[in-house]
Amino acid sequence: MKAVNVGICGLGTVGGGTFSVLKRNAQEIARRAGRDIVVSHIGMRQTKPGFDFEGCTISNDIFDVARDPEVDIVAELIGGYDVAFELVMTAIEHGKHVVTANKALIAERGNEIFAAAKAKGVIVAYEAAVAGGIPIIKAVREGFSGNKINWLAGIINGTGNFILTEMRGKGRSFEDVLKEAQALGYAEADPTFDVEGIDAAHKLTILSSIAFGIPLQFDKAYTEGISAITAQDVTYAEELGYRIKHLGISKRTGKGIELRVHPTLIPATRLLANVDGVMNAVVVHGDAVGPTLHYGAGAGAEPTASAVVADIVDVVRGLDLNDVQRVPPLAFHEQQNDTPILPIEAIESAYYLRLQVEDRAGVMAEIATILGEKGISMEAIIQKEPQQAGGEAGIILLTRKVAESSMNKAISTIEALPSTRGNITRIRVETLTD
Amino acid sequence: MKAVNVGICGLGTVGGGTFSVLKRNAQEIARRAGRDIVVSHIGMRQTKPGFDFEGCTISNDIFDVARDPEVDIVAELIGGYDVAFELVMTAIEHGKHVVTANKALIAERGNEIFAAAKAKGVIVAYEAAVAGGIPIIKAVREGFSGNKINWLAGIINGTGNFILTEMRGKGRSFEDVLKEAQALGYAEADPTFDVEGIDAAHKLTILSSIAFGIPLQFDKAYTEGISAITAQDVTYAEELGYRIKHLGISKRTGKGIELRVHPTLIPATRLLANVDGVMNAVVVHGDAVGPTLHYGAGAGAEPTASAVVADIVDVVRGLDLNDVQRVPPLAFHEQQNDTPILPIEAIESAYYLRLQVEDRAGVMAEIATILGEKGISMEAIIQKEPQQAGGEAGIILLTRKVAESSMNKAISTIEALPSTRGNITRIRVETLTD
Repeated sequence: MKAVNVGICGLGTVGGGTFSVLKRNAQEIARRAGRDIVVSHIGMRQTKPGFDFEGCTISNDIFDVARDPEVDIVAELIGGYDVAFELVMTAIEHGKHVVTANKALIAERGNEIFAAAKAKGVIVAYEAAVAGGIPIIKAVREGFSGNKINWLAGIINGTGNFILTEMRGKGRSFEDVLKEAQALGYAEADPTFDVEGIDAAHKLTILSSIAFGIPLQFDKAYTEGISAITAQDVTYAEELGYRIKHLGISKRTGKGIELRVHPTLIPATRLLANVDGVMNAVVVHGDAVGPTLHYGAGAGAEPTASAVVADIVDVVRGLDLNDVQRVPPLAFHEQQNDTPILPIEAIESAYYLRLQVEDRAGVMAEIATILGEKGISMEAIIQKEPQQAGGEAGIILLTRKVAESSMNKAISTIEALPSTRGNITRIRVETLTD
Repeated sequence: MKAVNVGICGLGTVGGGTFSVLKRNAQEIARRAGRDIVVSHIGMRQTKPGFDFEGCTISNDIFDVARDPEVDIVAELIGGYDVAFELVMTAIEHGKHVVTANKALIAERGNEIFAAAKAKGVIVAYEAAVAGGIPIIKAVREGFSGNKINWLAGIINGTGNFILTEMRGKGRSFEDVLKEAQALGYAEADPTFDVEGIDAAHKLTILSSIAFGIPLQFDKAYTEGISAITAQDVTYAEELGYRIKHLGISKRTGKGIELRVHPTLIPATRLLANVDGVMNAVVVHGDAVGPTLHYGAGAGAEPTASAVVADIVDVVRGLDLNDVQRVPPLAFHEQQNDTPILPIEAIESAYYLRLQVEDRAGVMAEIATILGEKGISMEAIIQKEPQQAGGEAGIILLTRKVAESSMNKAISTIEALPSTRGNITRIRVETLTD
């Protein structure tokens, strides 16, 4: 059978990894796909050392790849928004199947892209966009197709997890570890995307859509970063039997879908709490299967390439079958457009609160009374030793589940007390059991 | 579009779960599959209470289901060997696609079954045969299709893992926990299948075939159970920073494929070491993706049904596409028939050894000398306090990696020493890193 021609756009980390894996494992891949898969055309601004490009056309203009009549599948691996969008749409227009690792693109423009692909009868595959090498899109979209999915929660940003792991293991500050992560190349010079949860929210938006059958709605995701987490919070959480992880959480409730990225205390005994360093993991809870966990490298050249190539093989396996709607891109043939994404005020959560108060008798009672009046039950309230004699004392609170709106009111009221110093630190707590 | 008719053979635990899930989640499943999926025919020896069979034909003879012209997909959920084989072959003969949860059947007769299915142009799907609700067949067969898989290792028998977890958590003996597992319904009256590793070897045989592209070769799997593990071994392992798990391990080496089920010491910090109770988990290591872990319920009515229904949806998604060879049943279009499965003597492993010796000076030196002569390096050698004054002492040894054949010779030599009492306990050690 004729070989399938892949065009790679962008030979950065992921593009280079994809090229290497397709070459190195060509035989193994052909034995699986049923035919040879070759890279016939590469689009990159400037040629790169260390690769053997024999047999490949090289273009400086990536759009040449998308328009190449010999190319069957275009791998969009340039990243970013506008050019990537234009490139993918051009490839679709020219009847190419597309494989992409671009989470931002899928999360923000996926609805348009999939509509165009459907109209043209081509596939746009994006396993590499979420959690790198972990085949989580495939698991949720195909592996759990018998389930009503209840919720999912994941460590889906390796940079953030590396920082939190180092803070816990070595008692270091956020700023200190961030600098190291930047030096190691784990974090960008501008780390906003990673540490403020935007990257995780992109991935969560995609997972939420394929789990619950709703359109991609990145603009409705709640996003809170980890830059305000202190070494103290990490230690106190540990003392209470928890770990702080930066989680993306999406849940189905009677009122709608929760879609939120924020630091979260989870019980230290959970497997997810023990996912360390730059690794990723996603827990998916289906009504039939119960909890499952999927762990692996969430980034890096070859782990991400593993997912890109799996998508390419998937496309190749269906090439002669006209199977472009075999598995709908967002898992469901019909999206539920009327299921609301809940604002963060409408979610229910348990909470960890840390506050500084004047060190005098009666303060804890005052705080407990306010919480009681707002209908908030406590799991624990702990006063830490005053740091200076006659000065302030730290109070740590763990609450039961309560509506975020009630918690907001309680926090404002406590912050307004004359004995409270500064703002209250609030971190949500999830047991990941129900 | 016309609804797809499923015939269920066997309404035991998994059959009942499959019926319930297909009914309860009918709408969600139809939105994914693109058409309705209904159970039109059930074959069971006697009718069961608690189910609403409206709209279903009920037959006492399961073969009526396999021959029913209205049935599109037959779910073989009776288990066992001979009748199940005949049933699956009858269904194939009648042009039905087959979904099965029967690991013994696939591991032992899969080569024949897949050949018959290919000749007839139907699919035989078996996600539920390995690790219950975890979509591990899909992950290995499709999710890692870009990789050369190096090895996989899994906790793939919940009963055995429950027993080891209880032994560790509560210091109980094997026999004691086994009795409880039988009372709880986790273990059969005859527990051989689970605790001697036969069930795990069935599953490992399947995983090994789809990971390495070799034929199913259950008869060549090495199998060692957990019934000889003592509470003492569990404790000593713990002291050394390890946990004992009953693992199925399959590795690609330069000489062939290792295929072995046995108790194994693994570092306590590994996620796999922290998989407790009846849960299952499989680590897959691919050359591109690195290590990945897949965790979930390995048995039970609805978790297993989750996999059965996912397979049904997969078949339905391809029904009009004539895509029966889209994904080959054993992952590769061509099997490598000339790759040998290595005998256990040919593997390399590190070892934990426990022996009883006469409590006198020079014994440890004698043992160390024998190991040195056989080229075996030691990580640790620890003498435990003698249990009776002037009596015997326990010695615990941890070795580096060495050929099993060398270790066998060393063990015989040490057992033949006049100062050695009884047999040496030997447990293999895996770090799961390379």
